[in-house]
Amino acid sequence: MNKSRVEAFSDGVFAIAITLLVLTIAQPAASGYTELRRQLLARWPSLAAYAVSFLVIGIMWLNHHTVFSHLERIDRGLFYWNLLLLMTVVFIPYPTAVFGEALRLGHGTQTAAVFYSAVMTVNALMWSGLWLHASVGRRLLRPEFPESQRAVSTYLFTGGSLLYALSIGVALLNAYVCLAFHGVLALYYAFDPISRRLEHSEGQPP
Amino acid sequence: MNKSRVEAFSDGVFAIAITLLVLTIAQPAASGYTELRRQLLARWPSLAAYAVSFLVIGIMWLNHHTVFSHLERIDRGLFYWNLLLLMTVVFIPYPTAVFGEALRLGHGTQTAAVFYSAVMTVNALMWSGLWLHASVGRRLLRPEFPESQRAVSTYLFTGGSLLYALSIGVALLNAYVCLAFHGVLALYYAFDPISRRLEHSEGQPP
Amino acid sequence: MNKSRVEAFSDGVFAIAITLLVLTIAQPAASGYTELRRQLLARWPSLAAYAVSFLVIGIMWLNHHTVFSHLERIDRGLFYWNLLLLMTVVFIPYPTAVFGEALRLGHGTQTAAVFYSAVMTVNALMWSGLWLHASVGRRLLRPEFPESQRAVSTYLFTGGSLLYALSIGVALLNAYVCLAFHGVLALYYAFDPISRRLEHSEGQPP
Amino acid sequence: MNKSRVEAFSDGVFAIAITLLVLTIAQPAASGYTELRRQLLARWPSLAAYAVSFLVIGIMWLNHHTVFSHLERIDRGLFYWNLLLLMTVVFIPYPTAVFGEALRLGHGTQTAAVFYSAVMTVNALMWSGLWLHASVGRRLLRPEFPESQRAVSTYLFTGGSLLYALSIGVALLNAYVCLAFHGVLALYYAFDPISRRLEHSEGQPP
Repeated sequence: MNKSRVEAFSDGVFAIAITLLVLTIAQPAASGYTELRRQLLARWPSLAAYAVSFLVIGIMWLNHHTVFSHLERIDRGLFYWNLLLLMTVVFIPYPTAVFGEALRLGHGTQTAAVFYSAVMTVNALMWSGLWLHASVGRRLLRPEFPESQRAVSTYLFTGGSLLYALSIGVALLNAYVCLAFHGVLALYYAFDPISRRLEHSEGQPP
Repeated sequence: MNKSRVEAFSDGVFAIAITLLVLTIAQPAASGYTELRRQLLARWPSLAAYAVSFLVIGIMWLNHHTVFSHLERIDRGLFYWNLLLLMTVVFIPYPTAVFGEALRLGHGTQTAAVFYSAVMTVNALMWSGLWLHASVGRRLLRPEFPESQRAVSTYLFTGGSLLYALSIGVALLNAYVCLAFHGVLALYYAFDPISRRLEHSEGQPP
Repeated sequence: MNKSRVEAFSDGVFAIAITLLVLTIAQPAASGYTELRRQLLARWPSLAAYAVSFLVIGIMWLNHHTVFSHLERIDRGLFYWNLLLLMTVVFIPYPTAVFGEALRLGHGTQTAAVFYSAVMTVNALMWSGLWLHASVGRRLLRPEFPESQRAVSTYLFTGGSLLYALSIGVALLNAYVCLAFHGVLALYYAFDPISRRLEHSEGQPP
Repeated sequence: MNKSRVEAFSDGVFAIAITLLVLTIAQPAASGYTELRRQLLARWPSLAAYAVSFLVIGIMWLNHHTVFSHLERIDRGLFYWNLLLLMTVVFIPYPTAVFGEALRLGHGTQTAAVFYSAVMTVNALMWSGLWLHASVGRRLLRPEFPESQRAVSTYLFTGGSLLYALSIGVALLNAYVCLAFHGVLALYYAFDPISRRLEHSEGQPP
């Protein structure tokens, strides 16, 4: 199984999913153009949900790139974990649209926040599954990937799933706080020094 | 004709078609947000159809990759078979959307299941055509591709068309069973040991 | 200006435009599912328009690939001709959707056929412009591209524009014949022995 | 961090965003097909907005390609500036659709023009941020990139932000003039001799 072609396919899927996010912001109805300013301002939750999901998918892409750079090769099992992971990534525009629209309309906000958080949790579980498939017994890891780093990464991936599960609880308290919580989680993964350290060891045999 | 550029074009089309599947799940109408939980739960058939079609296209992509790895070169004929194949792949989101919506509404379910199965059957026929064009008289196969494997593959591709034709019959019995049948067919192709054996011989001259 | 990156960008645009064609076939309204078979059968013109436009874009992609393989390098002028060409390729799903829908509804068929043909004519003019920019005075052609072939290609590109202009006349006579005419034109370009000869000389210095 | 994979991801996002622009032109309603010619002619502002945004994104892609060709390497900071830049590029189809629709309906035209111009201004600011991150102290620039050129480029990027901010003022005067102003700005960047000079020095060590 050709690793670089699976990477290219995954890159394509990430690029398209992140771009389809723009379709999640509902166009004003024709009748709404007489009060267009109000219509556009009322869509700020959709814009916020767009920005959060955009950051989430962009950082996930970076994460995907880092994980694959540590793999020596890929097997059928990893291909299917990757396919399940992509299935949850591609799905993200749907709960994003629902979340933004619920906040705009002021109805179903709690349900929408729980839905969004649940999708993110399933996505985090797929990441954990992919990582565990690749790393348990060092099945697919490069020889130069440090053993100490392996434990840290496993801790980070499973811990991420717990944080996302926690976001479902936050969704039950307040939908706006929940959206902000997802934004903070994305920034945490963006600036997290541990994954940065992981990246520094990238491609450097000891 | 440059083989790797045709592969890259096909990869792009597969990646986009699989991502557009997310648009097949209908957004709730604005009036539906007062009962959003019920609206979302009622969409489980659309979600199931999304998951099945996602697996189908993902596994087809893998299959495409395997077949092309056994080709020495491509000609105009193969280009057109590939274009017809892609035409049916790109079309898949349409019957997927119709199938999910019919199951949600409880109307037209049999018609939708037959339509979905017929599209998949035409797709399987395009696969057979592409394979036969490439393999009859070993027209485009690599010299190291084993002759014994060629007969097995031809049997698998034409047999696949029959299985998909059979799914039209299943659609006439029950639409839900038909959707599950397509999921099982996808899993069969995912775990089928014969195509795995095919892959193992990939790129290894005897 | 990096030629291979412009090719990759163009390939991506072709792949996405061809895939977006599936969105041109209107989904049945929720109320239409009680008579789904009739609804789907009534959409055959949209399906035919989808198939014709799919072939047109697929063959254009092949054409693009062939033309670029004869270029030694690209300049800013070619980049802008290519951008204008892509602007007309990306637009094709719009008249395709209008054409299919007009034929289904039985209203505005002549207007839709003229619109579709006019867009194809503008597209053919962009092809001519791109070719003339590259070939006049052999500005960007590879040295090994035969001078005799250059005249033939110029004749084919400008002749193609005339054929597409003729399709506007056919549109005024009958919309169905016009759609079939576009299908035949696509097949003509697919099987045309001259462009095949052009391809055979590809990359082969004399 | 792998520079070429970030470039490929960005290329993909540009290619998809430019192609999604076709979805910004509203399809006529089924009832509109009895007067299809009038319906299509009334959409000329959407077509004009499509053309302007297409040129803008296409030229931005070229610009992106030129800037990245001058970078020695990329770091996390540049990755995030690039992600913010792409977030504004992907968003462009939304204000494009609103702008075209407002001009067609004759309502909310000023708001739509201000909205479109504001999005372009934010986009220009992201370009400035990305450039400053890469060039201040020559952080990521290739050694052969001339110091004199660096000042010129910084001036061009920040000046571009001011021009786009000026377009908000134009939007307050007249929406049609504003759209034309954006078209002229795109052409200015397309033919600007300074960025062409920048390109000529590309990859040529002194």
